[in-house]
Amino acid sequence: DFLRAIEEVPAAFGAAEQELGQCVANGIVPFGTTHAILESGALFIKQVKESARTPLVSVLLHGPPGAGKTALAATMAMSSDFPFVKLISPESMVGYSEASKAAQIAKVFNDSYKSPLSVIVVDNLERLLEWVPIGPRLSNTVLQTLLVLLKKPPPAGRKLLILSTTTSRAVLQQLDMDDCFNSQLYVPNVGSLEDVQLVTRHLEAFNEAENAKVFDALARAGISDVSISVKKLLMRTEMARQDENPVQRFISVMLDEARVAL
Amino acid sequence: DFLRAIEEVPAAFGAAEQELGQCVANGIVPFGTTHAILESGALFIKQVKESARTPLVSVLLHGPPGAGKTALAATMAMSSDFPFVKLISPESMVGYSEASKAAQIAKVFNDSYKSPLSVIVVDNLERLLEWVPIGPRLSNTVLQTLLVLLKKPPPAGRKLLILSTTTSRAVLQQLDMDDCFNSQLYVPNVGSLEDVQLVTRHLEAFNEAENAKVFDALARAGISDVSISVKKLLMRTEMARQDENPVQRFISVMLDEARVAL
Amino acid sequence: DFLRAIEEVPAAFGAAEQELGQCVANGIVPFGTTHAILESGALFIKQVKESARTPLVSVLLHGPPGAGKTALAATMAMSSDFPFVKLISPESMVGYSEASKAAQIAKVFNDSYKSPLSVIVVDNLERLLEWVPIGPRLSNTVLQTLLVLLKKPPPAGRKLLILSTTTSRAVLQQLDMDDCFNSQLYVPNVGSLEDVQLVTRHLEAFNEAENAKVFDALARAGISDVSISVKKLLMRTEMARQDENPVQRFISVMLDEARVAL
Amino acid sequence: DFLRAIEEVPAAFGAAEQELGQCVANGIVPFGTTHAILESGALFIKQVKESARTPLVSVLLHGPPGAGKTALAATMAMSSDFPFVKLISPESMVGYSEASKAAQIAKVFNDSYKSPLSVIVVDNLERLLEWVPIGPRLSNTVLQTLLVLLKKPPPAGRKLLILSTTTSRAVLQQLDMDDCFNSQLYVPNVGSLEDVQLVTRHLEAFNEAENAKVFDALARAGISDVSISVKKLLMRTEMARQDENPVQRFISVMLDEARVAL
Amino acid sequence: DFLRAIEEVPAAFGAAEQELGQCVANGIVPFGTTHAILESGALFIKQVKESARTPLVSVLLHGPPGAGKTALAATMAMSSDFPFVKLISPESMVGYSEASKAAQIAKVFNDSYKSPLSVIVVDNLERLLEWVPIGPRLSNTVLQTLLVLLKKPPPAGRKLLILSTTTSRAVLQQLDMDDCFNSQLYVPNVGSLEDVQLVTRHLEAFNEAENAKVFDALARAGISDVSISVKKLLMRTEMARQDENPVQRFISVMLDEARVAL
Amino acid sequence: DFLRAIEEVPAAFGAAEQELGQCVANGIVPFGTTHAILESGALFIKQVKESARTPLVSVLLHGPPGAGKTALAATMAMSSDFPFVKLISPESMVGYSEASKAAQIAKVFNDSYKSPLSVIVVDNLERLLEWVPIGPRLSNTVLQTLLVLLKKPPPAGRKLLILSTTTSRAVLQQLDMDDCFNSQLYVPNVGSLEDVQLVTRHLEAFNEAENAKVFDALARAGISDVSISVKKLLMRTEMARQDENPVQRFISVMLDEARVAL
Ligand SMILES: Nc1ncnc2c1ncn2[C@@H]1O[C@H](COP(=O)(O)OP(=O)(O)OP(=O)(O)O)[C@@H](O)[C@H]1O
Ligand SMILES: Nc1ncnc2c1ncn2[C@@H]1O[C@H](COP(=O)(O)OP(=O)(O)OP(=O)(O)O)[C@@H](O)[C@H]1O
Ligand SMILES: Nc1ncnc2c1ncn2[C@@H]1O[C@H](COP(=O)(O)OP(=O)(O)OP(=O)(O)O)[C@@H](O)[C@H]1O
Ligand SMILES: Nc1ncnc2c1ncn2[C@@H]1O[C@H](COP(=O)(O)OP(=O)(O)OP(=O)(O)O)[C@@H](O)[C@H]1O
Ligand SMILES: Nc1ncnc2c1ncn2[C@@H]1O[C@H](COP(=O)(O)OP(=O)(O)OP(=O)(O)O)[C@@H](O)[C@H]1O
Ligand SMILES: Nc1ncnc2c1ncn2[C@@H]1O[C@H](COP(=O)(O)OP(=O)(O)OP(=O)(O)O)[C@@H](O)[C@H]1O
Ligand SMILES: [Mg+2]
Ligand SMILES: [Mg+2]
Ligand SMILES: [Mg+2]
Ligand SMILES: [Mg+2]
Ligand SMILES: [Mg+2]
Ligand SMILES: [Mg+2]
Repeated sequence: DFLRAIEEVPAAFGAAEQELGQCVANGIVPFGTTHAILESGALFIKQVKESARTPLVSVLLHGPPGAGKTALAATMAMSSDFPFVKLISPESMVGYSEASKAAQIAKVFNDSYKSPLSVIVVDNLERLLEWVPIGPRLSNTVLQTLLVLLKKPPPAGRKLLILSTTTSRAVLQQLDMDDCFNSQLYVPNVGSLEDVQLVTRHLEAFNEAENAKVFDALARAGISDVSISVKKLLMRTEMARQDENPVQRFISVMLDEARVAL
Repeated sequence: DFLRAIEEVPAAFGAAEQELGQCVANGIVPFGTTHAILESGALFIKQVKESARTPLVSVLLHGPPGAGKTALAATMAMSSDFPFVKLISPESMVGYSEASKAAQIAKVFNDSYKSPLSVIVVDNLERLLEWVPIGPRLSNTVLQTLLVLLKKPPPAGRKLLILSTTTSRAVLQQLDMDDCFNSQLYVPNVGSLEDVQLVTRHLEAFNEAENAKVFDALARAGISDVSISVKKLLMRTEMARQDENPVQRFISVMLDEARVAL
Repeated sequence: DFLRAIEEVPAAFGAAEQELGQCVANGIVPFGTTHAILESGALFIKQVKESARTPLVSVLLHGPPGAGKTALAATMAMSSDFPFVKLISPESMVGYSEASKAAQIAKVFNDSYKSPLSVIVVDNLERLLEWVPIGPRLSNTVLQTLLVLLKKPPPAGRKLLILSTTTSRAVLQQLDMDDCFNSQLYVPNVGSLEDVQLVTRHLEAFNEAENAKVFDALARAGISDVSISVKKLLMRTEMARQDENPVQRFISVMLDEARVAL
Repeated sequence: DFLRAIEEVPAAFGAAEQELGQCVANGIVPFGTTHAILESGALFIKQVKESARTPLVSVLLHGPPGAGKTALAATMAMSSDFPFVKLISPESMVGYSEASKAAQIAKVFNDSYKSPLSVIVVDNLERLLEWVPIGPRLSNTVLQTLLVLLKKPPPAGRKLLILSTTTSRAVLQQLDMDDCFNSQLYVPNVGSLEDVQLVTRHLEAFNEAENAKVFDALARAGISDVSISVKKLLMRTEMARQDENPVQRFISVMLDEARVAL
Repeated sequence: DFLRAIEEVPAAFGAAEQELGQCVANGIVPFGTTHAILESGALFIKQVKESARTPLVSVLLHGPPGAGKTALAATMAMSSDFPFVKLISPESMVGYSEASKAAQIAKVFNDSYKSPLSVIVVDNLERLLEWVPIGPRLSNTVLQTLLVLLKKPPPAGRKLLILSTTTSRAVLQQLDMDDCFNSQLYVPNVGSLEDVQLVTRHLEAFNEAENAKVFDALARAGISDVSISVKKLLMRTEMARQDENPVQRFISVMLDEARVAL
Repeated sequence: DFLRAIEEVPAAFGAAEQELGQCVANGIVPFGTTHAILESGALFIKQVKESARTPLVSVLLHGPPGAGKTALAATMAMSSDFPFVKLISPESMVGYSEASKAAQIAKVFNDSYKSPLSVIVVDNLERLLEWVPIGPRLSNTVLQTLLVLLKKPPPAGRKLLILSTTTSRAVLQQLDMDDCFNSQLYVPNVGSLEDVQLVTRHLEAFNEAENAKVFDALARAGISDVSISVKKLLMRTEMARQDENPVQRFISVMLDEARVAL
């Protein structure tokens, strides 16, 4: 089973692995399509390893903010067992100029070309691109670098898997980046009350009696479908916990979310 | 009581606390939703301290110009008792280049990562962003820095509360900054004659007889709802005081405000 | 009387006062609302001096080109008797880069913070901002500097009055500068034949007989309301004087102005 | 007579005068409003010399390309007898950066402030401004420099006359430059066959018999009003002269011009 | 036969040839118009060699992403036997500034001028131009360099064939680059099930039985025309191979492609 | 005869002449208006030499791409016998910055001012201007330099003929460059089958029998008017020659061109 494998990711990783591990700080709750997404990831890893004709495979994980894209890409990368694993993330480039962002990105790719098997996570594309919808503006230096590197095959004998994440696939389409990815995986929000329960149980937010109370109340309120990101659900649950009456607070928070969605 | 705690904020604070103190130069008159806003603040402080799963909480205070956003954010920050408390404000960056503004902002965040518990007030976002509606133009360097830092979790074991203020939530939405805040608090104008009275009493602008005269006159003029920022109300009251007939002047000033609002 | 006080402004002023004096090269003819404007100015000066709660008061004088905005702001500043009086004007920054304009402006404000009582005249905002309607373009560096400094309270114990002038209040509104001023004063054109007479008498352009001839002619031509800036009226009168027949020339010049206005 | 005076302009001028002289390489043929324009110029010179209240007078000469704006401004400047006479022209700034153009312009104005009486010809404003209608683009550095200097009064005791030329008054209006000029003079094209004759006679292009033939032919062709710049008329006449049959060529050239105008 | 010649390309080539060889990593499957395109290429090579009047011939290969443009251009270049063969590709210029990209491009052209017979492959024009549809933005430095070099004849006695590729002929038209090419060759997608079979056979993806199964299923599904790039077909085939049931997977992948095309 | 004179242009020219000579690599076939254009050129040369009043004459040759503009301008320049003859061409400025392009252009003009008689060919204006229709963008530095230099008269006693070429007169009009040229010459495409024959004969592409076959076939196909640039006709003829059946190929190529034109 793939999910079990993840949990067994050895602790003796290097710096890159530590960084990737932090992206999964709250674990992976296997709700909705989580399992299917991770299995696709396993297939891509296998293809890169085994096909002689496709030394470069690049995949885009896209979905709403907080849906878990980064956590899933990091999980896939860590499960690859490839000798070269690296995270390219805007968080480690705060305050760099466009040119040195592009240079750093290029360096990671060049380093990967020295390893027989590599995986690079390119996290949060629109942030790497310094995208602003007003204007719109972006770093063409970074964009052009990515447009080439995401399609450039590694040297003979080397193999590379690229896992990118974005919340704005529409933006990427406008930037002609669509063509840079061989496959695209959609990462959805938590979409049902059952999945909400999966998460709150994982967080050990409530005891069973409280849990029942919460989901009874939500069901009685006529709520069945929701659409809340796993990240937001986590935050809202923790907020509720600070309240004198966490159960009541969580119920009212969830009702708010449902109301917003209407 | 939370409000009392504020008044007891010890005088022996460091430089940051002094700066924050100056943001509340005219005290906090507890009109309208002031109390509720400060209680939400107390809850966020508790969550950051106690939840292991949400080491980063970021809150946006938004509302009309002069409504008291900065004073309230400063008040919350000072009441946290966190070892690291810092104000990021355009006023201390006058004349800096975009790049060095971004660098200074990044430095404050990096410093905060060394403290177990930190609170950063990011005051007046649209000014930090060098926003102009004509164009529109802004500093993408500062924007990209903030877009990353406002969402970047502190290192393991560290906790951070971010309190930001803005008058232009619509602008932030256009800039995709919405997604950077876990919660949003609305800071309203002074909205009723009762609240106006609360403020003028606090300012000791008039004696009781004068006060009665003022609010009688306003009531007789058919004014009940107003919408004036606490900052403007303060300025108008002080202006009236310079007049030979302050009572009459204040009445006519308030009638002007009401007329403008119609 | 306020106006008399102005005329007595001592000659032993420093450099700033000399500069301000030159802004009133042709004196102040007390036509139309001139007197009321100067009295409002006196009230602002009193407020800054006496109110403990409003250490910063900033006022915008706006009106058509040549209406006398700079002369009136300079007159107010000179009448304040504040130890720190300073003029920020585009005329003294010709050829400076945006950054050094911003730096110079910031320096004046910083200097003012050392004086217990200060007045700064910020003359011709749209020129300081390097505004061009085509584009539109402006110096965002200067704009952001002003947006912060015009609202930044002086340090504890210091007090500051800011007097700004502009011909384009609509531009300032588009730039979100509206919010920077506590009060706005409108400076109008010369609007009646009586006021035109006040000015020509002040200039000693004609003797009494000539004067009568001029205004008879204008009245007979059916002209009563005019709208001409005091600066243009001055220029037109002096031009007429060069003619062989100044009276006739002045009449025809005024008829032209009236015609233009139709 | 003013025109005669011009012809007597002494040869012993300095460099500036030589430059100005070259602007009138083909003399001044006194057609149409030429005389009236030069007389207005004389009046402005007198005003600057004699009025104590208007130490700065600035005039705009505008009209179609080639109409003679530069030649007329140069003629006025040379006739002033002022100790400081200077031409600011794009032709002497080819290849300079925006900043050094602005600096050179500022230098000329500063130099003029040292002379009791000065005249500066600011030739071809839209070229100094590096104006392109596509975009539109221009040098805001030069524009802001001019917007201030054209309105800045010289120091006490100094007097300055500014004569500017442009083909695009509409552009200046869009740039808010209108307000920079106290007076505007329109320089028209050659507009009648009589004026065309005045010019061809001045050029000694044809003998009397040829001349008669030319204007008979044009009259017979029903042409009475024309609109051709004096500069183009000069060029067309000289071209015709190269032909084997200059008379016939000139006639057909003028018919072409007339046709174009229809 | 031209295609056989290609397969015999000697292994002892220099660096440029190796680079070009990598562009044809998966060989040339002679589907659809492949043969005709390569024959046109042979004719251009002959013209450059033999015509004295056309020392410069430049050809544009255009078509959808992945259609095989680069592979075909590289194939033509390698088959020329010209002493100077060079690839200009964005992949070798990652992270270079606009100016140094332009300089590198110019250097290749200048080097070619020293050889009697040269062929330059200018791969992926829109990437060399740093084109982004949003804005739109591009490197005018690179564009202007190419606009001149693509039309500049080599020095007397030298001959040059230019082979360029692009996916965006519409963009080139907007950039006035159309005029830079003497001829244009369209490289189409794989368009029929027969051609799909040609490719899968070449890839030895399935044995004959499997192959029959696949194409039976597709025919039964009513699919006859497809439009899939040879590059994508290759990638999809290799992906299918990773599956436990490659035949079924390939069928469903092709059905997906067909569905997308509807 | 003017055309004969051209053929006799001595071989012993300097570098500039060699460059110009290369612009006429394929000779001048006297089709259509070629003769008339060259005679106008001769007249301009005469005017510059002989008229004292027009020391600067500037001419624009405009027409479709490949029509022969550069070849004709070069031919005129070489036939002038002026001591200073120079070509300003984008081909010799590949990779230069805007500023150094402008500087080089200015240098050529300044050098010309030292010679009594000069001719400068300013080839391919839109390329010198780095014009792109998308945006649109251009080098304002080069544009402003040209706008001044194309109109600036040489110093006293010097004479200058400027011959410029462009394919985009509409662009020049948008840039206010129209006013820079005293005359404009239109260079058309080859427009009739007779003119096509003139060219193919000059190229000695076919023997008489073949020639007859070609034009019979074209006539039979109902083609009479064509519109093909002389440069393209040259290229198409040479391409046809590479074919096994050149006659048939040329016919089908011409039919293609005709079809395109419909
Ligand atoms: N099934 C799951 N899939 C992904 N993340 C999960 C899942 N279950 C729990 N999580 C947790 O949810 C969080 C998802 O956050 P993550 O940063 O990956 O979201 P994201 O989509 O990348 O957000 P953003 O749009 O802000 O980049 C992580 O802390 C992760 O540990
Ligand atoms: N209930 C209150 N809430 C906030 N401020 C108050 C309150 N009562 C009094 N004040 C005083 O009102 C002033 C509010 O000004 P503050 O600068 O905080 O407003 P702001 O909304 O940040 O303005 P701006 O939009 O200009 O940034 C402060 O001087 C504060 O001391
Ligand atoms: N009542 C008056 N108010 C103002 N100025 C007056 C008055 N009477 C006379 N003046 C004279 O009129 C002139 C007004 O010019 P000033 O430069 O102040 O106008 P402005 O509105 O600032 O012009 P601009 O729009 O060009 O900045 C001064 O020379 C001043 O001495
Ligand atoms: N009455 C006249 N007014 C002006 N110029 C005249 C007159 N008669 C003859 N000329 C000659 O005509 C020419 C006018 O050219 P000038 O450069 O002054 O025109 P311009 O309007 O400045 O042109 P541009 O629009 O190109 O700047 C000069 O050579 C001048 O000597
Ligand atoms: N008939 C063919 N024509 C072209 N390429 C072929 C053909 N048959 C197989 N191939 C292989 O298909 C691949 C085509 O990829 P190539 O990079 O040339 O496409 P492209 O059109 O340049 O793509 P892009 O639009 O991404 O630049 C190469 O690996 C090539 O070896
Ligand atoms: N009558 C002619 N006029 C011009 N060129 C001719 C003529 N007859 C033959 N030619 C040849 O045709 C070619 C014309 O090319 P040229 O570069 O001058 O065209 P162009 O209009 O400048 O092209 P472009 O628009 O690309 O600048 C030259 O090689 C020239 O020798
Ligand atoms: Mg993420
Ligand atoms: Mg605030
Ligand atoms: Mg003013
Ligand atoms: Mg001129
Ligand atoms: Mg390619
Ligand atoms: Mg050409």
